Amino acid sequence: MNSFETHLQLFNSHLENYKTDVNLRSPRELYEPEHYILSLGGKRLRPLLALISCDLFGKDPSSALNSALCVELFHNFSLIHDDILDEAPLRRNKPTVHTKWNTNIAILSGDVMLVKAFEVLKNYEAKEFAQLFSIFSKTSIEVCEGQQLDMNFENENSITANDYIQMITKKTAVLLGCSLQMGAINAGASSLDQEHIYEFGKHLGIAFQLLDDTLDAYSTDEKSFGKQIGGDIIANKKTFLVLKALEVSNAEQVKKLNELMSKKKGDADKKIPSVLAIFNELGVKALCEAEADKHTKIAIDHLLKVNADRTKLKVLENFSLALLNRNI
Amino acid sequence: MNSFETHLQLFNSHLENYKTDVNLRSPRELYEPEHYILSLGGKRLRPLLALISCDLFGKDPSSALNSALCVELFHNFSLIHDDILDEAPLRRNKPTVHTKWNTNIAILSGDVMLVKAFEVLKNYEAKEFAQLFSIFSKTSIEVCEGQQLDMNFENENSITANDYIQMITKKTAVLLGCSLQMGAINAGASSLDQEHIYEFGKHLGIAFQLLDDTLDAYSTDEKSFGKQIGGDIIANKKTFLVLKALEVSNAEQVKKLNELMSKKKGDADKKIPSVLAIFNELGVKALCEAEADKHTKIAIDHLLKVNADRTKLKVLENFSLALLNRNI
Repeated sequence: MNSFETHLQLFNSHLENYKTDVNLRSPRELYEPEHYILSLGGKRLRPLLALISCDLFGKDPSSALNSALCVELFHNFSLIHDDILDEAPLRRNKPTVHTKWNTNIAILSGDVMLVKAFEVLKNYEAKEFAQLFSIFSKTSIEVCEGQQLDMNFENENSITANDYIQMITKKTAVLLGCSLQMGAINAGASSLDQEHIYEFGKHLGIAFQLLDDTLDAYSTDEKSFGKQIGGDIIANKKTFLVLKALEVSNAEQVKKLNELMSKKKGDADKKIPSVLAIFNELGVKALCEAEADKHTKIAIDHLLKVNADRTKLKVLENFSLALLNRNI
Repeated sequence: MNSFETHLQLFNSHLENYKTDVNLRSPRELYEPEHYILSLGGKRLRPLLALISCDLFGKDPSSALNSALCVELFHNFSLIHDDILDEAPLRRNKPTVHTKWNTNIAILSGDVMLVKAFEVLKNYEAKEFAQLFSIFSKTSIEVCEGQQLDMNFENENSITANDYIQMITKKTAVLLGCSLQMGAINAGASSLDQEHIYEFGKHLGIAFQLLDDTLDAYSTDEKSFGKQIGGDIIANKKTFLVLKALEVSNAEQVKKLNELMSKKKGDADKKIPSVLAIFNELGVKALCEAEADKHTKIAIDHLLKVNADRTKLKVLENFSLALLNRNI
């Protein structure tokens, strides 16, 4: 992971220590799922952002290790519970916790991970702890709200593209902002710098999710994308592409799209190209990419307002662009 | 509630303010269940203990209002998730959250309540907050562990009466100790006093649960007990009575008891008297009450070591004995 390889190694080593401790705890039914999900891998993007941010503001990134662990634990708690909600059988090509064990264990082990996410912050002294806690608890609540909004969207017919942006902001983007802000707090950054780095992460997260939506529909390389291409279309997900399509289409196109999207589990071979044909007629891919670009620009604008070493800022800018272009 | 009526009113008024805030939040699907479960009533024992403890150590009980709210929110979070685990249709004679809404909403609204339980502690200044957080997060994890142990017991055959005490200590008793300790922290009590008041609450909780088990089998007044009499027997719960019975019985009695307890949902009219007959032969009711007495004595011993106003200590002692005797 280019220049941040050492940050990643630093975090992975901290995570391994934590996992060793998890392995010692009982009852095992409660802690094995935690160890399992933390062993499934992933980019470790959120902890990485915490360390990068701490480093950016001139402090040894190891100062942010427990903030990094906190956001990674929270992220994994949310995966366990979200997978129950989504009835997902697989996570990173392995059985989800509720599939491997059962729903009860998945609920309870998720609960413990949520508490542990808070608890690791206790390693900081009282004042720093209180600051970290404030942004983290606020963010945790927003993520739950985002998840609820996502569930609501399934059964609501009047969702707009703007509602969708609000939802992904809470469900996905704020945790990236939070991770960066926590690293900034560990480095003793000013409130203004904390705000800029938070907004940078938040808008980067929105852009990332929007590009993820276009890749879900348009990627030609399932392996590098890591998910089933067309999965959102098959699942009738009201992504930005769909909602924008409904906004800019004529009555006939609206009818056709709603018809396609009312099919429970249609024939993917027919449904995907039919939906894509409408997307292409309406040019919604470009509209989605333009929206992502807008948020990328807002993100970079905030980043450039941060009072920190220019070289480090440039490295982070390049890192974030590489992330959006899936070169990481 | 005898001398603590004003404490209860103080808390109820604080809770009403909190519920007004909950009513203003969205998405509604996430917050209506929180408002609902907080409106189902209950003795409010945990928040009451926090206020009583703060008062005992010489500070205005209102200082402990957010500690009290914290433990009540946590308690209600655990009820929402436990009711999913137990597939319970009713809570205080009203539909449980997962029944009234659905399991997904129950998981997610429980998650938010867990975060909110932590968040209300942020109203205290950094140092007090850090102290409250430590005992509360430790306790939260223990409660989850206790719930997991309880689930494990269903499928394990080698559980002892001692294992049962360990389980109820985590699942039920530590939160009473925690509530009292948090109130003590709010009052600025010494570490030693905090420890004594915590142990008082913990052992009181163990005694309470043991007496609850005997009432479940032997109460003659379902209305005042508030639950179905014989419910544990019907559900084949491995309570202290059962585990003690298995310990002190001969081979024939063990066989008969295991036989009765292997019936999925037996004829309650026949099963309850048959199980009770074995309990009576073995005198396990007295053994269970003796165990409860032992913990009550330990609790009172700790209480009397607390460095506080003797009159107030006496009032709390009487209150706890009345609680055990179900006069509250």
